[in-house]
Amino acid sequence: MLQSKLFTKTRREAPQDEVSKNAELLIRAGFIHKDMAGVYSYLPLGLRVIEKIKTIIREEMNALGGEEVSLAALQNKDLWEKTGRWDDTVVDNWFKTKFKSDSETALAITHEEPITNLMRDHVRSFRDLPAYVYQFQTKFRNEVRAKSGIMRGREFLMKDLYSFSRSVEEHDAFYEKSKKAYLNIFKRVGLSDKTFITFATGGIFSKYSHEFQTVCDAGEDIIYISKEKGIAINKEILDDENAAKDALTEIGVTRESLVEAKAVEVGNIFALGTKFSEPLGLTFTDEAGDAKPVVMGCYGIGIPRLMGTIVEVMADEKGLVWPKEVTPFDVHVIILSQKDPQVCSYAEDLVSSLERSGNSVLVDDRDLRPGEKFADSDLIGIPKRIIISEKTLQSGQIEVKDRATGEVSFMNEGQL
Amino acid sequence: MLQSKLFTKTRREAPQDEVSKNAELLIRAGFIHKDMAGVYSYLPLGLRVIEKIKTIIREEMNALGGEEVSLAALQNKDLWEKTGRWDDTVVDNWFKTKFKSDSETALAITHEEPITNLMRDHVRSFRDLPAYVYQFQTKFRNEVRAKSGIMRGREFLMKDLYSFSRSVEEHDAFYEKSKKAYLNIFKRVGLSDKTFITFATGGIFSKYSHEFQTVCDAGEDIIYISKEKGIAINKEILDDENAAKDALTEIGVTRESLVEAKAVEVGNIFALGTKFSEPLGLTFTDEAGDAKPVVMGCYGIGIPRLMGTIVEVMADEKGLVWPKEVTPFDVHVIILSQKDPQVCSYAEDLVSSLERSGNSVLVDDRDLRPGEKFADSDLIGIPKRIIISEKTLQSGQIEVKDRATGEVSFMNEGQL
Repeated sequence: MLQSKLFTKTRREAPQDEVSKNAELLIRAGFIHKDMAGVYSYLPLGLRVIEKIKTIIREEMNALGGEEVSLAALQNKDLWEKTGRWDDTVVDNWFKTKFKSDSETALAITHEEPITNLMRDHVRSFRDLPAYVYQFQTKFRNEVRAKSGIMRGREFLMKDLYSFSRSVEEHDAFYEKSKKAYLNIFKRVGLSDKTFITFATGGIFSKYSHEFQTVCDAGEDIIYISKEKGIAINKEILDDENAAKDALTEIGVTRESLVEAKAVEVGNIFALGTKFSEPLGLTFTDEAGDAKPVVMGCYGIGIPRLMGTIVEVMADEKGLVWPKEVTPFDVHVIILSQKDPQVCSYAEDLVSSLERSGNSVLVDDRDLRPGEKFADSDLIGIPKRIIISEKTLQSGQIEVKDRATGEVSFMNEGQL
Repeated sequence: MLQSKLFTKTRREAPQDEVSKNAELLIRAGFIHKDMAGVYSYLPLGLRVIEKIKTIIREEMNALGGEEVSLAALQNKDLWEKTGRWDDTVVDNWFKTKFKSDSETALAITHEEPITNLMRDHVRSFRDLPAYVYQFQTKFRNEVRAKSGIMRGREFLMKDLYSFSRSVEEHDAFYEKSKKAYLNIFKRVGLSDKTFITFATGGIFSKYSHEFQTVCDAGEDIIYISKEKGIAINKEILDDENAAKDALTEIGVTRESLVEAKAVEVGNIFALGTKFSEPLGLTFTDEAGDAKPVVMGCYGIGIPRLMGTIVEVMADEKGLVWPKEVTPFDVHVIILSQKDPQVCSYAEDLVSSLERSGNSVLVDDRDLRPGEKFADSDLIGIPKRIIISEKTLQSGQIEVKDRATGEVSFMNEGQL
């Protein structure tokens, strides 16, 4: 894509009310637009990152046997009353609104109630289970504060998978598989070194749930990491004497060995048991002909939060730094003598050749000074930068710069 | 995909309160779920159709030079007050809600205001224009009645493109190109025979806007078609004596030659002039250094409405009938003797071979009577059905049935 055709422009300053590093850089680089506090729109470069992340997650969810759906945002009050979650004193971050008939509705904060209700139409017997259903869908959460940029939006895209199993054993086996899929995801987006499975409080149906926490200064959470085991415990558990003792024993570490760190919860998985299937009547007939409630689990990843965390962890003083797998473009080709027809024709051939070998390329063909182009390129953060100038033509050597390390190398076209 | 793994089931009856043919069939076939009146969720088969339609539209929008974004649903009241559209007496189908701070917000009914405001950050001079920006994003409309299934949802996915031009001439040239892109879209989804460009009232900035109306008994609109010209006029224009006279003259037809028909508005394009750019301050500096308001246009297609229209137009008494380009799967392979290992192995090879040549395949491997499988297959409506039984193995001839025509032919594997 030609940068001269991209409608977004970079800018020196983010809006004054923006205090988070991730949103500040993403706004300056033209990836997102701030509509209001905690409400962001995604521009072409930002949307490309979102789509890359979605593709990785979709592949991992499909590999788990997940089937993709897309549930409505507007919620049926009756369902949430049955589970006791409609009440504002129970759930305090609803956006509620009304139909013309004056009956109440609200915007989905999550989708356990509607998916459980929906499954009633499709689950009859043990033969219909297990089932794993997921979506990428907007959640709306009326946060009191939204000062973490896209890491805590009032409206954000979430991948949420729900599992429907016949027994606790069947659920547990899937839950373990989902941990591996989650670790794959965080590895593929470039966060594996800093991301820890973290013991968190469970609920009636399980002692623990599990968070995936990425160590990051901008994190709102505190975790306690066992470097030896590669596992962490969250603050909530460690602050409770009994829970802490149990968790430390289970993991096999001492409290003293744990290292405190600020972290961002980039994902979580939760055993729901029959918390939703019982009140909403999602049952199946087992082999003996008895009706039993379905055993459920939920598995979430906030897509913008993950994107924001990547920004926070990778960016440097010059701007964004994208890992290979989620970058908006693979290569940034910068033409320095854009008025020289020989240079342009050389660049065109090179870009075609890069694209033929499967690279997506952003080509800076704008009539700007080299310094401005380099600064924009650093800000946008595409992993590989190639500079094409008269010098390139003369030497036959292409200058390639790695955005993350700053390393410059010279290559022939065949080596790219 | 194996049908035994698909979590959705077909059903004999749709919910009793569902009165539209499109939703009734889509619910029965397991493509959608009805959450509330006018609020539907999309299940795996339905989502596949939505994605196919999106791909076609995306290709056509990209060919027009469109750049894809994704704007927020939550709206900034200030912007809509500037254009006078916040007021419930002006726009009567808002879903309004409040932030925790008690300040008002609402869910996007459309996106002219936020996109115009956003472009202010990216448009400075004539060099930054024209720009064409589009998205697939949910619109929320608080309809008093929602009795047309997915053709009139209270929450629905829309493709909306906004054009930003330097002059009326530049706008007009793009507007004409967009008509062709729209006609391509309706042709590709299989509706070209029944879809007419329809003259509709414009606004302050243009005499006409244009609707794309598909003739359909379930339509809520009335149009008047000139079969000779392949163009229509909507009721609003024809009911106004002066407007009717002008439009008839412009098209070059007599009122008597027009044929009345019920139709669904599957798309519309609208010249906005400076209606939004002036109050919201979206200006550019022209070649002479003068500040001028940007000339805008908007171009919409409701995705579920288009999907619902395809259902209404194509379906027969046995169920859904999908055109090739939007079908959830290209081929439905039905295994009749699913317990015979030879039949299964033959089917497996055939499916692999179909998939290798680019077909997506749904394989009915369920342990059901042939009649049930055929009825489900008719209901789901995949264009091509292949039956594999012991007979197939004996004869070496594969039975292929065309869902739309019912025509049965026998082929060798090489002919598929």
